[in-house]
Amino acid sequence: MTRTRGIARPQTSPSADDVARLAVSTVIFSLRRRPGDELPTLVLPLVPRTRDPFAGLWALPGGWLDGQESLDAAASRTLAETTALTPSYLEQLYAFGAVDRSPTRVVSIVYWALLRADEVDASAADAPENVEWFAAASLPRLAFDHNDIVDYALWRLRNKVGYSRIAHGLLPDRFTLADLREVNEAILGRRLDPANFRRQVENSGTLIPTDDFRTGSHRPARLYTYNRDVELADRGPLDMH
Amino acid sequence: MTRTRGIARPQTSPSADDVARLAVSTVIFSLRRRPGDELPTLVLPLVPRTRDPFAGLWALPGGWLDGQESLDAAASRTLAETTALTPSYLEQLYAFGAVDRSPTRVVSIVYWALLRADEVDASAADAPENVEWFAAASLPRLAFDHNDIVDYALWRLRNKVGYSRIAHGLLPDRFTLADLREVNEAILGRRLDPANFRRQVENSGTLIPTDDFRTGSHRPARLYTYNRDVELADRGPLDMH
Repeated sequence: MTRTRGIARPQTSPSADDVARLAVSTVIFSLRRRPGDELPTLVLPLVPRTRDPFAGLWALPGGWLDGQESLDAAASRTLAETTALTPSYLEQLYAFGAVDRSPTRVVSIVYWALLRADEVDASAADAPENVEWFAAASLPRLAFDHNDIVDYALWRLRNKVGYSRIAHGLLPDRFTLADLREVNEAILGRRLDPANFRRQVENSGTLIPTDDFRTGSHRPARLYTYNRDVELADRGPLDMH
Repeated sequence: MTRTRGIARPQTSPSADDVARLAVSTVIFSLRRRPGDELPTLVLPLVPRTRDPFAGLWALPGGWLDGQESLDAAASRTLAETTALTPSYLEQLYAFGAVDRSPTRVVSIVYWALLRADEVDASAADAPENVEWFAAASLPRLAFDHNDIVDYALWRLRNKVGYSRIAHGLLPDRFTLADLREVNEAILGRRLDPANFRRQVENSGTLIPTDDFRTGSHRPARLYTYNRDVELADRGPLDMH
């Protein structure tokens, strides 16, 4: 051991004090439709910073990694502590580690999940009062690099709807093709041609038609359900751990 | 500040000493064909551990994060220091943080890249003597959870060849469809039907045919080049930073 300015430093590995601390943050996307809205809005929960750095600004839910928990567990715990949200599955999104993203060196492992409005509503009574949901497309200036993190999550989400079943995370068990199209439209921020969309979905093999229809003010619409043979989030070998 | 067993601990955030240290590791895939091989083999470089934990076992190239460098920079630096390899682009793969992956708590941010054989050969003279290339499909027991990390990287690579241009990272500027098919076959570990493969590639819009042909012992084969309008690795908003 050598000593530099009073700090014990092993020679073969850095003292963690002068390198980086590890935090986890979470981007939770949901859809909210206000009366009169043509399309639902993609929203996410934020919590206000109560101390520096960035006191008073809004930030993604999160916290410090605990020494005795995995990264996944830390993401679930800090999300529950700050928002009372408990998604069944959080996916690791990206590790953000720019040197200047915080006054002290902090690397944040960011997770994300999609939640249906009824899942959000179910935990609303337990949510701390300071949690607020914001439209993802028009956020205020956030703490740290959290605007960049949300931009990246939005980009990944919009890319992923093209080749995966991710939009289904925002739908109930049974839904119409119009419901599914609307979720895709809300994520992409633009209208999709109904006939083209129906053709793509029917060719994808990800949906199973049921014998039931939704009736109401429009003509009856067939209800579909997920093809459970196709994984919602295929993590490959990671699922073994 | 409170003091516990002589270690200064701030009250509002954990001391990094008792949480986790941050390391970076890199999975570099290349293809190697030995005389007589029907297909090239997917290979990756490993370095032997010279000290505990896991002294004597092979491990992925990597090292500790330095306090004044980004995660990307740390990955490039530690890869160059241990293997002399300097890929033009390293992509972040995943952060591995299981509590028991090392005797002390270490979270590893893993990067990956694909390198052509000639790129590997160009740096071979500078490579430390202890670097060895192993067939990805038949690795020995590696240090830490590095076998799991390679399995995950292989799974991602095999998935990605289906919807991205990633296989081109293993090809020269101009190549035949047979060259491209062979790279895909080596990654997937199985033969592909030449006619189906040709049809898929021609429909994908990712290749541009040149007016040149490769001649030799077989009938002349047209040379193709990349469509540079399609990004090799589209990182979206991350490319702004």
